[in-house]
Amino acid sequence: MQPIRSFDDLSVGQEFRFGAMAMPLEEVLDFARRWDPQPFHTDEARAKESPYGGLIASGIHTLAAMFGHMLRTGFVERVSMGGSGLEVRWLQPVRPGDEIDVAGRVEGLAPSRSRPDRGTVTMRYTGTRVGDGAPVIEIVATHILKR
Amino acid sequence: MQPIRSFDDLSVGQEFRFGAMAMPLEEVLDFARRWDPQPFHTDEARAKESPYGGLIASGIHTLAAMFGHMLRTGFVERVSMGGSGLEVRWLQPVRPGDEIDVAGRVEGLAPSRSRPDRGTVTMRYTGTRVGDGAPVIEIVATHILKR
Repeated sequence: MQPIRSFDDLSVGQEFRFGAMAMPLEEVLDFARRWDPQPFHTDEARAKESPYGGLIASGIHTLAAMFGHMLRTGFVERVSMGGSGLEVRWLQPVRPGDEIDVAGRVEGLAPSRSRPDRGTVTMRYTGTRVGDGAPVIEIVATHILKR
Repeated sequence: MQPIRSFDDLSVGQEFRFGAMAMPLEEVLDFARRWDPQPFHTDEARAKESPYGGLIASGIHTLAAMFGHMLRTGFVERVSMGGSGLEVRWLQPVRPGDEIDVAGRVEGLAPSRSRPDRGTVTMRYTGTRVGDGAPVIEIVATHILKR
């Protein structure tokens, strides 16, 4: 994975691989207790009686973990000026101990009309569980990047 | 704010107020260091030189904080079976120390065709900065609720 040096490095259809990330039990519990306190995320016994049959990670946790993982590769470090929004779909429950493989694809590129120093890229990020190859999360996000 | 007892309690257009939440500096830094390590979220000096002119909260942090705040009111505690996705738009940067007022509106209701014990509600959550009344974040999220 080559860090981006400029918005102009990118082309629609380009694909990037960010490698796998872990979703350890302690982190699943810690994140959910602070940000998504629902029993199927925070309480092993009550999660067993929930429709999920056991603990699952908060979807917002999986989203945050994917972003952190992608950012730590340095992918947009030199060029990121933030973002304006995203869409996330949770396709399958993520369980404590799952490993999630993260990839990204350039879906769209829009140079800024008013500011020649930047452009907006739309990226589709997918998370695939390493154990069974199941897609578990899909994120479509915009990044504002320097040119 | 009355906690929901059943999916069937809801009607399109219903509005809920969840009160204000704080975005303290330490939490802004802690969240971003772990989940969104970009200098305009984590480093006061580098943030000053960024296009934002100072630290701003991670958008994923604002999203997570709004969800946690809403959940802690007990709004969906008796009925939540999780969610399948959301869309978020960040309308204005959130600064450390901002207070954000959180409200929600029922946008759509879809009883499950295959499972008579549940339905999906689409909620639009808005976050408004208390200081200046500026809308800062909008989230459209689905919740699967018991009937």
